[in-house]
Amino acid sequence: MAFVFLKTLGTGVVMQRLIAVGGLLVLIALSLPAMAGKAPPVSEDSQACLDCHATATPDIVADWRRGLMSRTTPAMALKKPELQRQFSAAKKDVPAALRNTVVGCAECHTRNPASHADTFDHEGFQVHTVVSPRDCAVCHPVEKSQFQQNLMGQARRLFIRNPLYMDLASKINGVLKLDGDKLAYLKPTPADEAESCLYCHGTEVKVVGKVTRDMGDFGEMTFPKLSGWPNRGVGRKNPDGSLGSCTACHTRHQFAMHQARQPQSCSQCHKGPDVPAYKIYQVSKHGNIYNALKSEWNFKAVPWTVGKDFTAPTCAACHASLLVDAEGVVIAKRTHAMTPRLWVRLLGLIYSHPHPKKADTSIIKNKDGMTLPTALDGTPALKYLISPSEQARRKKNMTKICLSCHSTQWVQGQWSRLDASIKSSDAMVAAATGLMTRAWKQGLAQGPAQGGSPFDEYLERLWVEQWLFYANSVRYATAMMGADFGVFANGRWYTTKTVLQMKAWMDKQK
Amino acid sequence: MAFVFLKTLGTGVVMQRLIAVGGLLVLIALSLPAMAGKAPPVSEDSQACLDCHATATPDIVADWRRGLMSRTTPAMALKKPELQRQFSAAKKDVPAALRNTVVGCAECHTRNPASHADTFDHEGFQVHTVVSPRDCAVCHPVEKSQFQQNLMGQARRLFIRNPLYMDLASKINGVLKLDGDKLAYLKPTPADEAESCLYCHGTEVKVVGKVTRDMGDFGEMTFPKLSGWPNRGVGRKNPDGSLGSCTACHTRHQFAMHQARQPQSCSQCHKGPDVPAYKIYQVSKHGNIYNALKSEWNFKAVPWTVGKDFTAPTCAACHASLLVDAEGVVIAKRTHAMTPRLWVRLLGLIYSHPHPKKADTSIIKNKDGMTLPTALDGTPALKYLISPSEQARRKKNMTKICLSCHSTQWVQGQWSRLDASIKSSDAMVAAATGLMTRAWKQGLAQGPAQGGSPFDEYLERLWVEQWLFYANSVRYATAMMGADFGVFANGRWYTTKTVLQMKAWMDKQK
Amino acid sequence: MAFVFLKTLGTGVVMQRLIAVGGLLVLIALSLPAMAGKAPPVSEDSQACLDCHATATPDIVADWRRGLMSRTTPAMALKKPELQRQFSAAKKDVPAALRNTVVGCAECHTRNPASHADTFDHEGFQVHTVVSPRDCAVCHPVEKSQFQQNLMGQARRLFIRNPLYMDLASKINGVLKLDGDKLAYLKPTPADEAESCLYCHGTEVKVVGKVTRDMGDFGEMTFPKLSGWPNRGVGRKNPDGSLGSCTACHTRHQFAMHQARQPQSCSQCHKGPDVPAYKIYQVSKHGNIYNALKSEWNFKAVPWTVGKDFTAPTCAACHASLLVDAEGVVIAKRTHAMTPRLWVRLLGLIYSHPHPKKADTSIIKNKDGMTLPTALDGTPALKYLISPSEQARRKKNMTKICLSCHSTQWVQGQWSRLDASIKSSDAMVAAATGLMTRAWKQGLAQGPAQGGSPFDEYLERLWVEQWLFYANSVRYATAMMGADFGVFANGRWYTTKTVLQMKAWMDKQK
Repeated sequence: MAFVFLKTLGTGVVMQRLIAVGGLLVLIALSLPAMAGKAPPVSEDSQACLDCHATATPDIVADWRRGLMSRTTPAMALKKPELQRQFSAAKKDVPAALRNTVVGCAECHTRNPASHADTFDHEGFQVHTVVSPRDCAVCHPVEKSQFQQNLMGQARRLFIRNPLYMDLASKINGVLKLDGDKLAYLKPTPADEAESCLYCHGTEVKVVGKVTRDMGDFGEMTFPKLSGWPNRGVGRKNPDGSLGSCTACHTRHQFAMHQARQPQSCSQCHKGPDVPAYKIYQVSKHGNIYNALKSEWNFKAVPWTVGKDFTAPTCAACHASLLVDAEGVVIAKRTHAMTPRLWVRLLGLIYSHPHPKKADTSIIKNKDGMTLPTALDGTPALKYLISPSEQARRKKNMTKICLSCHSTQWVQGQWSRLDASIKSSDAMVAAATGLMTRAWKQGLAQGPAQGGSPFDEYLERLWVEQWLFYANSVRYATAMMGADFGVFANGRWYTTKTVLQMKAWMDKQK
Repeated sequence: MAFVFLKTLGTGVVMQRLIAVGGLLVLIALSLPAMAGKAPPVSEDSQACLDCHATATPDIVADWRRGLMSRTTPAMALKKPELQRQFSAAKKDVPAALRNTVVGCAECHTRNPASHADTFDHEGFQVHTVVSPRDCAVCHPVEKSQFQQNLMGQARRLFIRNPLYMDLASKINGVLKLDGDKLAYLKPTPADEAESCLYCHGTEVKVVGKVTRDMGDFGEMTFPKLSGWPNRGVGRKNPDGSLGSCTACHTRHQFAMHQARQPQSCSQCHKGPDVPAYKIYQVSKHGNIYNALKSEWNFKAVPWTVGKDFTAPTCAACHASLLVDAEGVVIAKRTHAMTPRLWVRLLGLIYSHPHPKKADTSIIKNKDGMTLPTALDGTPALKYLISPSEQARRKKNMTKICLSCHSTQWVQGQWSRLDASIKSSDAMVAAATGLMTRAWKQGLAQGPAQGGSPFDEYLERLWVEQWLFYANSVRYATAMMGADFGVFANGRWYTTKTVLQMKAWMDKQK
Repeated sequence: MAFVFLKTLGTGVVMQRLIAVGGLLVLIALSLPAMAGKAPPVSEDSQACLDCHATATPDIVADWRRGLMSRTTPAMALKKPELQRQFSAAKKDVPAALRNTVVGCAECHTRNPASHADTFDHEGFQVHTVVSPRDCAVCHPVEKSQFQQNLMGQARRLFIRNPLYMDLASKINGVLKLDGDKLAYLKPTPADEAESCLYCHGTEVKVVGKVTRDMGDFGEMTFPKLSGWPNRGVGRKNPDGSLGSCTACHTRHQFAMHQARQPQSCSQCHKGPDVPAYKIYQVSKHGNIYNALKSEWNFKAVPWTVGKDFTAPTCAACHASLLVDAEGVVIAKRTHAMTPRLWVRLLGLIYSHPHPKKADTSIIKNKDGMTLPTALDGTPALKYLISPSEQARRKKNMTKICLSCHSTQWVQGQWSRLDASIKSSDAMVAAATGLMTRAWKQGLAQGPAQGGSPFDEYLERLWVEQWLFYANSVRYATAMMGADFGVFANGRWYTTKTVLQMKAWMDKQK
């Protein structure tokens, strides 16, 4: 075909064009050595790791090589304009020894050895298994500090310190034994807890001994024995005493931002009936656009330009990412606290409420002395919750993101819908709670006032589903525009059905 | 590597080949100016919009630029061979002023200003917020007219005019209040209706006043205040009196056909337990092929060539798209009515039935005077339903699509399976309805004959789930070949369980 | 831009680089004819098929052309190094007539004509519709033989020969009729069976007559009439007497390994509440990585190199594929039996248990004479189950795969979690079964000892859901690391709730 074409043009033109095109190719060719030739150095320590682990755990090494940290030194990161930086340490705070090598195995797994209870001697290196947010904070101090203010960063602490949460967990995860004519609960095992609530909230990873293993070609080796491991819960307690797990979202060992920006990352903990965020996103217009068009988007760009890099938000876009407009003006600052953009907590405990002031919500006591932000009659524990003006400030931050694509009228309409769904779903929680309270009073069930758990009878389970599954689904469905989950898929169909069912059940007991 | 290679060939051959390859590159280079240089013009009015909105709503503008309408004038569209055209107006019907500019902001948002109650003065332009099917019909009259004959185009009207539907909606969405020992329903708020049934069926968007806002750098502006907004329901009533919303599937402002052709678009309204089409597609062989191989397909080609552009159907392929075979012969004409390919309505009301003759189904009355196409005993309201010969005609249209990939025997086997699933699922609806009717007669529940709603008691809810969730799931599972939804995932397991449960419940009441 | 660039370099350098780059292009150009020019031949018989079917069933032909078999002859496959081969026949076993043409229509659809009851004369060829594993085994004998040892390969046989399975199926799929005050079951129709259990387990495809059809331009043709068709169940009984269906996973007519390696293929049968494997994968870390990063992976490489071709496993990676490390060392051999990597059966019947020795599990009898691998009190039918040492051997095979990416400690922690979830979920099955047994004894339900089916009463359905839905979900959730399904999404929330519900129901009967 090329030959045929040549006949239609004079040779001079051909050569001229050829040189022009060739020049472009030369440009590419010339820049290749610059790109390929000057790979920044791996530290000696990390190279020692790689020498064995390329064979021992090939996928870990291959995965790391695909990531940005294997190709970037802190010095290189510091040279980038601030908005393009995925690195928040000041130059002065980066230890000199780390500045000019890429972030490899040793840089993380031998960091802060003294504070790590899981540090052990491994082929002459003081290595620890569990890299913690405190280790990551050498280069990412802002992210670490923000994440501590995030409910997720405190997800273990706020959970295990809350006696009501622990009671609920023990009634879900404890094994029931039939003893004569009665059912009795056994205490949940640590493994069952780790495979249910603590899978996301985070286990405590502790050194509980040593173990020596025959590692084949590598001979015998001794390692610390860990309990609570594996776990990648966002609020994990680490062997260095720190809380959190960066790899919950930034999956090791590629740590790819372009993965964390995609909604599947969040789906690991936010897909169940209690927090159906991912399922709702999937059937929303935003999710529809993402799923149909994402192959045309750029998930790697920093900052993330609305319209240019993506045309509909993912979870990260609205809740975490640094967003700019086409002219580079910042629409939203990056946050790992999430809270700057969240004004109301849709997860009802047992009603929705203004966001808590502090991430460790186990300090909250409502008017009835329960460790919940709202009382059974709906009264919020305002002392522990953000003020209306703080709510307004946060709502404005989120609104600014919405306005990149929607008119003010559109967004205000959306917020008034959200207010309405909050109100009606809370009213349906009130109806179910009214029945439950009456059942406790009438002796149809044994509640806290009768010395019983509120979570271990069939009627109580219906009541919990009302606020934990269905009312939440209604609110999230409006917030994220996935209407199925506001009606037939765990939505209003179920908030009304559950109340009718509870009433019918109670009527029959009499 | 290139140098090494050069040594193995004589220079003459190298130069000859080089020129040949270069010539090919020149061919590409020469065609680039033609492609890039002659961008068709944006109208002056639209340019005025873009001047501000590129900053004010950057994603809207960026999204529009990605779409075909930002790069195509009606004149260009009219030059395409008919089968390649996504434009259905005749040349004579396109206003001269629109012919030679691309379809920009002003072309749609200032169209038909007099008929739009939401028209307002915006920087000197008579702009309206809500672009309606009547506006789109300037270029797409056939699509608009077909969509009016689609159940979706009438989805709001057929819903709000049907007293049974409205009763069901009020018993799902109304808030229940505990009043002494009794439960009482409050009327659902417009916002709750908009966030549940009307989210998909469509709200009425009405101008209810004016609002003046401080638009920052742009100063104060006055806009019409809209109720029922935002909404993208398929049967929406617009401020110009028209019905429908093209952007429900053709998401603004890219309006990408390659999005509408992907199943996620349909999932926005067809994923719930009432119409689980998308969930069934996902686990079907068709969905499996789509999900695994779609990156190799061409979702943009018009017409859409079976086998070349895609190797398994999406929702659009079977229900809407213009399909041709490898030789360009039409397999199926494009339809926005959908009905030419649908002979039986799988959505049971309360039994499945031949498709209704008219899209506005609120005119239907069955033998018992109910606004449903079948009576409680299964008798269809034949007067309002298509005839067996029309059913046969439509079935043939769909069959022709199936035959692109399947043998006649295969397809006939599939249809006989569908007939069987319809029959057995209808029989299971009859069993549940028999029990429900008996319960009403025996006073175990208050039905219409007793002056009650058929939707506000626990037993009645089980009965509704039987026909609205489970029987539908069984039928859709066979139609779309996702067997899980015919058995354990809301399928036959539940149609039999529900009847056993209703019977056990009734037996205990006595 | 290229011109601008040229000015910055001496012409000598330009030409030198140009020749270098051009040389590379020549290299590509020279290899094109070799790639494109020597398409291996299609047999005369297959060409005859293609001549008509390119028009008659265009997608089938187009799909086949995209596949590897349309471009590969057995002779070519045999030349590949063994690890790269997707072909397991020895050279001597491939009929000479097949060696040097690609695998086209006739090669499969006219194979073994005498053994096929569905063979018919079609335009002079002895064609059969249903290509069976026995046909595929001409080139893939190892895969066929392994698949016979797979539970899937026996999925129909083990199902229809097990009276308990058949009773369960009849109580799920049979239509219930209200007869006076009583409910009575009708026997399920073959079509309902084909659309539920047998959709995945496999129908029997039988020739039940002949049918003559007007095939338009092609005139009248006579075909065998098949019952049980269409079906793509893994354990299908074929007209040649063989069991199985390769196209269940290797979708015809592309038969793409890169499709079978993706989890959607498995989702066709493994998404329901009974075996929620795909749903759990989706919310697991592995699924998250797959969904976010798969566009960067190579699903076509044989063998499949961990880390290079993919960075997180799909179903196939752990359960079937040939895996190698970066140096080409085999981590896991390809298996179509799956069993070499499976030591415990998570699907409880009714408790989890060591994998059965033989794939046809209908031969199993437990201590109570039931055709189940465990008795109602949990006692396993050890005689039919693999030994602890065989379990250990298989666990080691799977562990080796995990160790590509995880440390020994990580994997051992994971297995001890799985042991714990198995133990606690089995204990919750025991609690529900204890209640059920008591209900049967007390006459609250009619069980086998009372001459009743254990599957046709409401209370019995709750009991079945306990072991078939919820306990399975808990175990799969741990095995595949999708915690939602271990807690609120059909997990521990439901195992405890069901027991509380059964107890409440029984208490009210008294």
